[in-house]
Amino acid sequence: MTTIAVYPGSFDPVTNGHIDIIERGAKVFDEIIVAVLNNQRKTPLFSGEERVQLLEESLTHINNVSVDSFQGLLVDYVKEKNASVIVRGLRAVSDFEYEMQNASINRKLESSVETFFMMTNNNYSYLSSSIVKEVARYGRNAEDLVPPPVERALREKYQR
Amino acid sequence: MTTIAVYPGSFDPVTNGHIDIIERGAKVFDEIIVAVLNNQRKTPLFSGEERVQLLEESLTHINNVSVDSFQGLLVDYVKEKNASVIVRGLRAVSDFEYEMQNASINRKLESSVETFFMMTNNNYSYLSSSIVKEVARYGRNAEDLVPPPVERALREKYQR
Amino acid sequence: MTTIAVYPGSFDPVTNGHIDIIERGAKVFDEIIVAVLNNQRKTPLFSGEERVQLLEESLTHINNVSVDSFQGLLVDYVKEKNASVIVRGLRAVSDFEYEMQNASINRKLESSVETFFMMTNNNYSYLSSSIVKEVARYGRNAEDLVPPPVERALREKYQR
Amino acid sequence: MTTIAVYPGSFDPVTNGHIDIIERGAKVFDEIIVAVLNNQRKTPLFSGEERVQLLEESLTHINNVSVDSFQGLLVDYVKEKNASVIVRGLRAVSDFEYEMQNASINRKLESSVETFFMMTNNNYSYLSSSIVKEVARYGRNAEDLVPPPVERALREKYQR
Amino acid sequence: MTTIAVYPGSFDPVTNGHIDIIERGAKVFDEIIVAVLNNQRKTPLFSGEERVQLLEESLTHINNVSVDSFQGLLVDYVKEKNASVIVRGLRAVSDFEYEMQNASINRKLESSVETFFMMTNNNYSYLSSSIVKEVARYGRNAEDLVPPPVERALREKYQR
Amino acid sequence: MTTIAVYPGSFDPVTNGHIDIIERGAKVFDEIIVAVLNNQRKTPLFSGEERVQLLEESLTHINNVSVDSFQGLLVDYVKEKNASVIVRGLRAVSDFEYEMQNASINRKLESSVETFFMMTNNNYSYLSSSIVKEVARYGRNAEDLVPPPVERALREKYQR
Repeated sequence: MTTIAVYPGSFDPVTNGHIDIIERGAKVFDEIIVAVLNNQRKTPLFSGEERVQLLEESLTHINNVSVDSFQGLLVDYVKEKNASVIVRGLRAVSDFEYEMQNASINRKLESSVETFFMMTNNNYSYLSSSIVKEVARYGRNAEDLVPPPVERALREKYQR
Repeated sequence: MTTIAVYPGSFDPVTNGHIDIIERGAKVFDEIIVAVLNNQRKTPLFSGEERVQLLEESLTHINNVSVDSFQGLLVDYVKEKNASVIVRGLRAVSDFEYEMQNASINRKLESSVETFFMMTNNNYSYLSSSIVKEVARYGRNAEDLVPPPVERALREKYQR
Repeated sequence: MTTIAVYPGSFDPVTNGHIDIIERGAKVFDEIIVAVLNNQRKTPLFSGEERVQLLEESLTHINNVSVDSFQGLLVDYVKEKNASVIVRGLRAVSDFEYEMQNASINRKLESSVETFFMMTNNNYSYLSSSIVKEVARYGRNAEDLVPPPVERALREKYQR
Repeated sequence: MTTIAVYPGSFDPVTNGHIDIIERGAKVFDEIIVAVLNNQRKTPLFSGEERVQLLEESLTHINNVSVDSFQGLLVDYVKEKNASVIVRGLRAVSDFEYEMQNASINRKLESSVETFFMMTNNNYSYLSSSIVKEVARYGRNAEDLVPPPVERALREKYQR
Repeated sequence: MTTIAVYPGSFDPVTNGHIDIIERGAKVFDEIIVAVLNNQRKTPLFSGEERVQLLEESLTHINNVSVDSFQGLLVDYVKEKNASVIVRGLRAVSDFEYEMQNASINRKLESSVETFFMMTNNNYSYLSSSIVKEVARYGRNAEDLVPPPVERALREKYQR
Repeated sequence: MTTIAVYPGSFDPVTNGHIDIIERGAKVFDEIIVAVLNNQRKTPLFSGEERVQLLEESLTHINNVSVDSFQGLLVDYVKEKNASVIVRGLRAVSDFEYEMQNASINRKLESSVETFFMMTNNNYSYLSSSIVKEVARYGRNAEDLVPPPVERALREKYQR
């Protein structure tokens, strides 16, 4: 059985919590596609291209991972990629309900696509892209929170 | 990559909610071992042997599933079986916190074992082995809630 | 439309939180039957008869309320009484999930029976029969927590 | 006792989950007023008039239901309509806390108005107006999610 | 041990729930600094200066409390004030998770700063600055919800 | 202001999560009394005396901490010790609701006693006395989970 999994997200920017999920997922699934959602209604800090590039620079140590971007409905993208699994990280109860709702609607739309949830590492349970940006914006060091390429990119964005 | 997953539980008795998780997991992992926990401190309705047999009779339609029983720590059993994945179903927030705690301690004990959570089908979100026993005990038909072999076994237990 | 509602519970003993739900429900439904569950597997502080009597003494000020007791499945009792509504109070998230599960299974068993939830008054959100017994057992005054007949009965039980 | 209930919401657009709550509420209360909130700070997909019309077209099969719209505080509208009950559907824990807060403040403002919560059907627990719009926007069929008049209206809006 | 605590918030405007937390905190800590967050990305009803003034007018009865405002990261402000404690009120599960995340990141940034949570009084568990503004905007009396100086200020803002 | 805080619990046995809360609380309050609850209805692994002794051996590095045991209502014990604060650790949503209920009833019984909650360190968010016993019972090393005196005591209990 060859299983391709999609790990979707905004990744604005990718954090160490995301990297941990990808590393662990890559040990179980044959291939993981990290898929950056280009949501035209939100104004991200990093452009879609920058987010893809930061992911690629942060994931060079894992062989069976590729980075891509998508628009539209997630299940349409998953089918197009011949993937059968969506991977999502869970941190807290509020994540849980939102993710359950998404998994339900995705299953209603495409019953052949299965969503698997992984527990975020306790060390990163407080971590989110928003918090990383808040910390970096006020000149704090984010090097424990994000991979080195992201730390450098944040420093440039906020001109430290 | 050949991935063996363990789906542990009390299964006293197995419900349609459990069967749904097993069917969906069997499409993603190469092999699933359904592992009945023999917890000596609880008095089950069905003995360990009966629970294993009811699972076997209810899972004849899936090829890559086997049924077993275990005692002791789950991670020790998983390692012994050369499995790398634990599968668990999530129904509700209360499940979620309990399962997160278990996944954390299991990961602390064996970092090579990964826990994946699947969302219980909405149709079975209210379903538990306890509710099945309650319904059957008062003479109600449980045929929408459990596989046929379990429905028959419940009828015998409660002498209807 | 004449609507009969059943308000089920253990009521071991009835608290001011329960009384508040009953008073408010009695303004909306034509008749409320307060139904004491005789669960043979638990050892209550007050017997089924005592619990019914304490409810009756505490509810003399409401005309359209009667007190009864039942065994077995709640939906069977509701049908037997020609009632169409189950009323339940909600205090907290943990209540919520348990009650949602019960409402789901009851609806599965009898689709004609509807469960309505009322929010417990903020003043009583911490209140439960267990907490009342804990407070009374250590000689504290429970007169703000329970109706006067229950306060007297608790004093006798704990021989203050 | 003649009980008039108000079922308030944005209904942008009405979903099958809303219809299910209205159908079930209409069996218990003498009259239900479905009240569309005209919140001037949000930009809806459908105008207030369109939302009222879609509700009317979707509810022709229920006799004791009427559709209306309102602005301002809900309790003021409820009093104006001589209603004594607010009906709300509950899907998840996050709904629950928001609804509890609203029910508390409404009760503080008008103690004679009672809020009753009904559990959303498990089949619709993932469903929201936002998800319906997301699905329709990307050209997916929404006919299992909304009543036929809404399915047609969504198709026109997104010019499929 | 002299303990200085910071109680941060938007306070747009301060409610009776906030006042209750401050009064109770002031009995335990030597000094409490109520710190108004000037978040430039939100448009408040009351300006930063107005919010500070309303707090000062509402807290004249407590000796060991001062009012201030800040920008940037909370932990930087706390250190600057030689405080060692952050005080936060908890009302509901949704508060809880958000606050836990903040406390985690603050502790990561400054391990010497400790966050203490106090339970909001049951009477105010439904209360928020948003609800106060909603109530006042529609001409309802807010005098049970906010201190007298805020009630007067709301009346002026909404020109009643 | 001299503030004495009580940190109550079963401590069967004390874990590194408890120690972390005590260490952090001891930096803020003048004195902390760690109070072992002797609940006669539960059968602990360690006797009340053993639990007190293990706490004492594990807390020799903190000056302003003492260990004691109590029976009956917590607020009565707190008053008897001239303490004004109860300290509790919070790990998860399920903790939160239980603790909120306790804090409410304690405040109702003794309004002069204030409960403060501290967030459990992320590294210990999965940790509980039950999990420690489970791990030790099956011969796993618990040295990352408990202080050295407890690790030794567990080894003796389970005769490893």
